[in-house]
Amino acid sequence: MVARLQQHQKAHIAKNYLGHALRIAIIRRLMDPLFEIELELPAKGSRDAARSLFEQLKAAILDRRLTAGAKLPPTRKSADFFGVSRNTASEIYDRLLHEGYVVTRHGAGTYVAETLSPHAPSPATARDAEPPDPRLNPFWLRAEVSDALGFWRDHGATATLRTKTTAIDFRPALVDSRLFPFDVFRRVSAKQLRGLERKPARFKSPQGNQGNYHLRAAIGKHIALTRAVVCAPEDVLVTAGAQQAFDLIARVLVTPGETVVAIEDPGYPPMRVPFAAAGAKLVPVGIDEEGLIVDALPADVRVICVCPSHQFPLGVTMSARRRRALVEFARARGAVIVEDDYDGEFRFGTSALAALRTADAADVVFYVGTFSKCMLPSLRLGFIVAPPWALRTLIAAKNGLDWHCAVPVQLGVAAFIAEGHLTHHVRKMRAIYQRRRQLLLRALHEDFARWLEAIPSDYGMHIAASVRGSPDLDAIAERLRERQVKLHTFGRYFCGPATRHGLVFGCGAVDLPEMRRGLAVLREALSA
Amino acid sequence: MVARLQQHQKAHIAKNYLGHALRIAIIRRLMDPLFEIELELPAKGSRDAARSLFEQLKAAILDRRLTAGAKLPPTRKSADFFGVSRNTASEIYDRLLHEGYVVTRHGAGTYVAETLSPHAPSPATARDAEPPDPRLNPFWLRAEVSDALGFWRDHGATATLRTKTTAIDFRPALVDSRLFPFDVFRRVSAKQLRGLERKPARFKSPQGNQGNYHLRAAIGKHIALTRAVVCAPEDVLVTAGAQQAFDLIARVLVTPGETVVAIEDPGYPPMRVPFAAAGAKLVPVGIDEEGLIVDALPADVRVICVCPSHQFPLGVTMSARRRRALVEFARARGAVIVEDDYDGEFRFGTSALAALRTADAADVVFYVGTFSKCMLPSLRLGFIVAPPWALRTLIAAKNGLDWHCAVPVQLGVAAFIAEGHLTHHVRKMRAIYQRRRQLLLRALHEDFARWLEAIPSDYGMHIAASVRGSPDLDAIAERLRERQVKLHTFGRYFCGPATRHGLVFGCGAVDLPEMRRGLAVLREALSA
Repeated sequence: MVARLQQHQKAHIAKNYLGHALRIAIIRRLMDPLFEIELELPAKGSRDAARSLFEQLKAAILDRRLTAGAKLPPTRKSADFFGVSRNTASEIYDRLLHEGYVVTRHGAGTYVAETLSPHAPSPATARDAEPPDPRLNPFWLRAEVSDALGFWRDHGATATLRTKTTAIDFRPALVDSRLFPFDVFRRVSAKQLRGLERKPARFKSPQGNQGNYHLRAAIGKHIALTRAVVCAPEDVLVTAGAQQAFDLIARVLVTPGETVVAIEDPGYPPMRVPFAAAGAKLVPVGIDEEGLIVDALPADVRVICVCPSHQFPLGVTMSARRRRALVEFARARGAVIVEDDYDGEFRFGTSALAALRTADAADVVFYVGTFSKCMLPSLRLGFIVAPPWALRTLIAAKNGLDWHCAVPVQLGVAAFIAEGHLTHHVRKMRAIYQRRRQLLLRALHEDFARWLEAIPSDYGMHIAASVRGSPDLDAIAERLRERQVKLHTFGRYFCGPATRHGLVFGCGAVDLPEMRRGLAVLREALSA
Repeated sequence: MVARLQQHQKAHIAKNYLGHALRIAIIRRLMDPLFEIELELPAKGSRDAARSLFEQLKAAILDRRLTAGAKLPPTRKSADFFGVSRNTASEIYDRLLHEGYVVTRHGAGTYVAETLSPHAPSPATARDAEPPDPRLNPFWLRAEVSDALGFWRDHGATATLRTKTTAIDFRPALVDSRLFPFDVFRRVSAKQLRGLERKPARFKSPQGNQGNYHLRAAIGKHIALTRAVVCAPEDVLVTAGAQQAFDLIARVLVTPGETVVAIEDPGYPPMRVPFAAAGAKLVPVGIDEEGLIVDALPADVRVICVCPSHQFPLGVTMSARRRRALVEFARARGAVIVEDDYDGEFRFGTSALAALRTADAADVVFYVGTFSKCMLPSLRLGFIVAPPWALRTLIAAKNGLDWHCAVPVQLGVAAFIAEGHLTHHVRKMRAIYQRRRQLLLRALHEDFARWLEAIPSDYGMHIAASVRGSPDLDAIAERLRERQVKLHTFGRYFCGPATRHGLVFGCGAVDLPEMRRGLAVLREALSA
């Protein structure tokens, strides 16, 4: 802390002589663990600022974003950072102290408690310590559901000095929002909002509940271009992201306790939740180098969930032979296929294979697309291209659950596509992802051949690599986290114990210098 | 038609001499049934324009928005209106003709078919004629579900010359979007979108999945001010409108085939759908002048759905005595209350009664609010203030179904509230609705006392009136529709046959002159 304090004094001097910009740069270097976690700072003059900040800090301590033993900054600095009075900051610290989340060491400041008091359940026991109220459906807090829904959470990050500015994030299916043309999206959205002014904004007709017509038409054109999926606006249902698409499909296809649903193993854990919630019997099915092993499908399967273009997480593209077998299997058994095509816009291989949902599979394939990867996840917009026989039921389900998606977002995305911005953005990102892939593949081949073998992959924003031998991958991932490198092992993608071992390298949220730094850290960890 | 053609010729002359504005005014008067239905016109040069327009016209004929016998305009006029070539318009007409949706009368043009060909199931039989695929859950197309979800649809409008510009819409719970400050919303939204640029737009933390913190804080302040509901941001879950709030509550509280859910009868039909979909046993419970009849609740009820402030549709405010009884009943039986407070911002009476969900009922009340009435339904934004014991499960369910609501809309609404625009808008609208209510109440008292008796009501955007004697209300409503006045009878709000009879006067989407015209038409119909 001495060094820090000296630096802090320097920062003040710098401010006095050199002005605002430098002060910010130096303050960044001074960043404290407290200032590194994501906090929603209260609005100026907010009356519940103290309560809100207390709750957020408590949550951060409970889920270990603020680690045991971490030193909190003095109240003066916190008050400054939070934009509250010094009194309010002291009030927050006092309450944390009173409830046992922090301790003070005489004359040495405030630290996150090493052992939490009885008031504060430790994260390990929190789940069981508070038995859910018997009035509640226990499904949603089951360990496997919490784990699946925790997929996007930043598990087990124990570094005390993770700085957002330097964390290197190889997690798959993230996008680099720094590269999104917010200005363009803002402009087309504002134009569309202006248009709303001239129309009655009443509840929409059933057709409107299927999604805005222009958006559905734009989606049709976009996937015809990028995925060779031919469909009319009438075949498209707009959903709140792919997750709601899975939920709607589960709601219309699953009979509780009866319907057998095949899921890829390893696969995308959050997809399993809506099917399980609807009462499906989930059957994990393995993947080989040709994709989902069709021969391993249970005879009584009714719904087959698959990522044929870019398996999540292995990256395999399903072979043409396997695709034919899958569609034939589904037809013969009266089953349907749910095709999750989350990043199919980003094709790099020479393979001519497009989506599984070609015109002649339109009767058995529910094609699920999303704007989370090719635009932004925060838009929460996706869609289903459904077989004609299922569409009316799907629309009714969508209407019953939330009527339709927010019109301003639908209009903004429709205009963004129609005016050619999506094509432009995808083209730009494809070139960027291509360079990242190339760097990664070259490194895997040249520097990591002793330990890792890339799994061939033609698509998308991540590459998986099998590990040779049997190093302790969890220990390696832990070591990486300590060095602020986030990298998934295969483990979390399996339904049960992992039967294959490897690492998943997402290219979505790391630029080339970050990749190089991250790979250097990985090399050290593997060499150790 | 002769008169029409002459008018049409006049319109052209007017255009030549008087320019654009007048032409539009005259064309409006010429509007044809085809131009009156809501169509999504294809973008210029769209390749699927013909298919899209064909499908939309077919749908309009099937659901009787275009009535049997209605004359379609000549292709030249349609082509103009649709923004397609004359060839494309002819292609659409040909296909409609070929598939039996329209007929031609020699030399006299094209008419909607009186009886639809075997290709075209009539609307009466469409539901049964196309048996749903056995792979689908039959729930969603059941007659009672379709009817409930069709609540917002403009049923049975048979007028051949409904013009949007002159239709008078007394349906309840609509808002007058003409009065919404789109410019302000656009400005605050653009500012927020600009802010997104500086943050990584990754999937949100669990806290983000509960809804944006600033929005939850803003909601807390808004309902504290307008509804005396005291809650912290931590108690609020942001939902895709009230409809998703009902779905989430059903998903976490209902055990299929077991849980008994009480619903108000008459009540809001779409609310029943998510509970029925979750497998609840719905029990209708009657309403008297004090609100929901607590004594009529079944002993084994687990969830009690109620609109205590402004019963939908009767408008009754639940008495203090009845509220106490309801909360005590729920506590004693381990049941919970779902309070649907859809238009509580608009209080006019002198009653001091606020929301049911006061601080001392926080353990048993799920308070559901929406921005559909105080802002716009097209935003699809609402929220639940949940008992602490249920919140973690509700958030997990929300995450499992669609992660969270679209961030741009959440940020826009949060800023709209935080900057005081919602308070301002509500104040403005309250004054406007107050004037409409006064006009309506005076009219009911002075001009309609022979036929109608207003049900006392302190809140909201509609007033219900019981009918004296037993006139044929359906025939009257039908006559009103022919005269372009949309007015609901109590019938559609009952689960079974109506036990009370009356009319519901929504004030949301009619201004004072429209109300006067509409009431004059009603008076004629009642006198007839």
